[in-house]
Amino acid sequence: MNADIGVVGMAVMGQNLALNMERKGFVVAVYNRTRKRTEDLVAGRGKGRRFIPCYDLEAFVSSLARPRKVLLMVKAGQATDAVLKELFPLLEPGDVVMDGGNSHFLDTERRLAEAERRGLLYLGVGISGGEHGALHGPAIMPGGHREGYAIVEDILAKTAAQGPQGSCCAFLGPGSAGHYVKMVHNGIEYAIMQALAECYDLMKRGLSMAPREMADVFATWNGGELSGYLLEITERILRHVDPDTGRPLVELIRDTAQQKGTGKWSTQAALDEGTCAPTIAAAVFARTVSALKEERRAAAGVLPGPSPEIREERGGVLEELFGALYLTIVAAYAQGFRQLGDASRERGYDLSLAEVARVWMDGCIIRSRLLVPMRTAFMENPDLPLLFLALPFASRWREHHGALRATVMRAHRVGIPVPAMGSALDFLDAYRTERLPANLIQAHRDFFGAHTYERVDRPGVFHTDWESAP
Amino acid sequence: MNADIGVVGMAVMGQNLALNMERKGFVVAVYNRTRKRTEDLVAGRGKGRRFIPCYDLEAFVSSLARPRKVLLMVKAGQATDAVLKELFPLLEPGDVVMDGGNSHFLDTERRLAEAERRGLLYLGVGISGGEHGALHGPAIMPGGHREGYAIVEDILAKTAAQGPQGSCCAFLGPGSAGHYVKMVHNGIEYAIMQALAECYDLMKRGLSMAPREMADVFATWNGGELSGYLLEITERILRHVDPDTGRPLVELIRDTAQQKGTGKWSTQAALDEGTCAPTIAAAVFARTVSALKEERRAAAGVLPGPSPEIREERGGVLEELFGALYLTIVAAYAQGFRQLGDASRERGYDLSLAEVARVWMDGCIIRSRLLVPMRTAFMENPDLPLLFLALPFASRWREHHGALRATVMRAHRVGIPVPAMGSALDFLDAYRTERLPANLIQAHRDFFGAHTYERVDRPGVFHTDWESAP
Repeated sequence: MNADIGVVGMAVMGQNLALNMERKGFVVAVYNRTRKRTEDLVAGRGKGRRFIPCYDLEAFVSSLARPRKVLLMVKAGQATDAVLKELFPLLEPGDVVMDGGNSHFLDTERRLAEAERRGLLYLGVGISGGEHGALHGPAIMPGGHREGYAIVEDILAKTAAQGPQGSCCAFLGPGSAGHYVKMVHNGIEYAIMQALAECYDLMKRGLSMAPREMADVFATWNGGELSGYLLEITERILRHVDPDTGRPLVELIRDTAQQKGTGKWSTQAALDEGTCAPTIAAAVFARTVSALKEERRAAAGVLPGPSPEIREERGGVLEELFGALYLTIVAAYAQGFRQLGDASRERGYDLSLAEVARVWMDGCIIRSRLLVPMRTAFMENPDLPLLFLALPFASRWREHHGALRATVMRAHRVGIPVPAMGSALDFLDAYRTERLPANLIQAHRDFFGAHTYERVDRPGVFHTDWESAP
Repeated sequence: MNADIGVVGMAVMGQNLALNMERKGFVVAVYNRTRKRTEDLVAGRGKGRRFIPCYDLEAFVSSLARPRKVLLMVKAGQATDAVLKELFPLLEPGDVVMDGGNSHFLDTERRLAEAERRGLLYLGVGISGGEHGALHGPAIMPGGHREGYAIVEDILAKTAAQGPQGSCCAFLGPGSAGHYVKMVHNGIEYAIMQALAECYDLMKRGLSMAPREMADVFATWNGGELSGYLLEITERILRHVDPDTGRPLVELIRDTAQQKGTGKWSTQAALDEGTCAPTIAAAVFARTVSALKEERRAAAGVLPGPSPEIREERGGVLEELFGALYLTIVAAYAQGFRQLGDASRERGYDLSLAEVARVWMDGCIIRSRLLVPMRTAFMENPDLPLLFLALPFASRWREHHGALRATVMRAHRVGIPVPAMGSALDFLDAYRTERLPANLIQAHRDFFGAHTYERVDRPGVFHTDWESAP
């Protein structure tokens, strides 16, 4: 019996995906650089299932039905290159290699070119959903060789979460399209998590609410159109009681958020595309500040601020907080989708943003009911420049912008930082401003660097000799 | 007669630097890829001066006294590589090559390694001051081979602006230290220009002030401790009347700010260092939004906001605006210096931040009286993590943070975007917060990705199986 697909890398994501695929009816060859993890899988959770455990890469490759289908679930970076270096020479033209890790999209382009030289088909596959998603159905974002996708489509589509509008898997585009989309997914994830943390801070320090009370608020919010995975787990986290101390666990967790780099990459790529991702950037920098725990402790003594207490009626504050969270979350998606559109034009991905929205509807970390109207908006206008220009989101702006303003102003009054909400407000206020003050900046640039400017009253490019002016 | 130094590239910056050096007593060989510019210089502004015009690179190199000293003033990127490819083989071990362009610091590291292989001495030289500074004395930020600097020090130190605390030129460190410092200089420049544009917008749309009235305000501010070049030129720009229309020229300039990439690089590098540069990032993204002129016009009709009119007494609003500008500008420098400190540790530059502050005191675009107390702060504590922890700036925080809050709140109330001021406030409010809500983010990460967390009540690294929790 030959395997339908092989998975390289038996860390938890690789194991869970292999188990998921086997459950969908596929025979799965499994291989790990060190023997133990493969043995553990087939003796443990995979016992009695149709796995073919392999202990060297040659045997692994031999066990696969042709054209061979290999999914790498290996740490991004050098480890992935090391496996590919061994794997590529063992394969034959027409075989399909998928990289399911969080690889940088430029690494994917390089590897795809190398695979192409060897006649292999290559897919950079973004996979989101964490351990749980890998086992029960993640969102799968493949890009690369379309002919390769045709060969693995059945397996991937069945392995993915089955969302409200079909399998959360679709071929997204050539080259690094899949990993690019996954990167921006993570950028959006950073921004939403930061916005949720700002809500938590305002409730905790501002309104002196207990975690259980906050959980009730998030549960209510999660029942409406903002409903989504990150709201859901926020509620569950806030309800979690530490068995050792009997206290809410969240309050015992150190307030330093780490990062593995995809939010950073997303922001760096946004800068390279010349697109607007200020809220995603603000969320990345907020994590950086959180890491400076000792410095913050010192600064707290030197840089005083107002009392964080919000002396207003709680119900009204929370109602406005919902509007602020709503618009900030939509701003995060709007910036992400815009970056995808800009990158698609720049890099030839030919992305369907509607399809991206559909794939994100289930399985992944940023799944949310909001993706349904977002998909509709991009179906109605595939060239929509920003989600807020579509009717449903423009109307939510009208409804909630006062709440966003009030919330950001309130936070600044009491000294609670709101970098995600604040940047969303400033971004939207700039975006809806027909005449910005950038004329002064362009004048500065012309003054000191002779960078020239355009005029509003006539065509052409102009330079003024400001120095010799009266 | 041999030349003391040779300049390659006779665009305006190269010409002006050559004229400046000649005026300081040096014989300067000049060369340009195309003949015309060199001819123009020696027949025009350089007539009768001690220039040696050269029309091929071999003659140019032969004209130089040994060890040869060559300054490249060529467009960054491929043009620089093209010149170096021709130039390197013509030189001999011990000759010094300086790249005075805005090269990316990683390109500088690559070129320096290539020069080293050939026994040449290489300097990446950041030069700031625009055309005027190049002619009358720029700030010069050299880094690379220290032995090379010793050879060119006399020329560079005399060419640089003579600031209040000495020549605005100093060897900054090995490798790409010079270009890295210049890149961050430009990042700070972006943030200050954006902060000034926000003041202009609040005065214009908020307070309905005429440019002349605004100029008077900037003149007053420029008379105090915030005094600096960018405030000075803001005043002069606002006073400038268009001769054709008789109207203030600034109002006739199209409100789309362009960028050449150094602000973007600075932000991308900040992300790579894991340092905090949210205000610089916000300024870069603000330029990006400004470029979306047509979209903004469309959005203005769809996304309404409050009236921009500020119905408050003008004097009080302007007084608070000064405090807001003050803290935002200091935040821009503080983030930039912090990035330099972090990069120095990461990249082995061994930078003296006090020396950087001294070099920036004159000649460059971000020169300001503020650099005097900044230098003092870094002299007193070379490891100062952030300028705001030093007494004079902590005391200004106490004095002005209320004004910054009031200004940002006011802007948000009337719908005028203030991304630089807002991000400075959120950054500082986060930095001075002993307990941030990042514990929730770390819980999110552990929930969906098993990324683990630390606890505040005991050492160790923990993971919770949140899914199976009650």
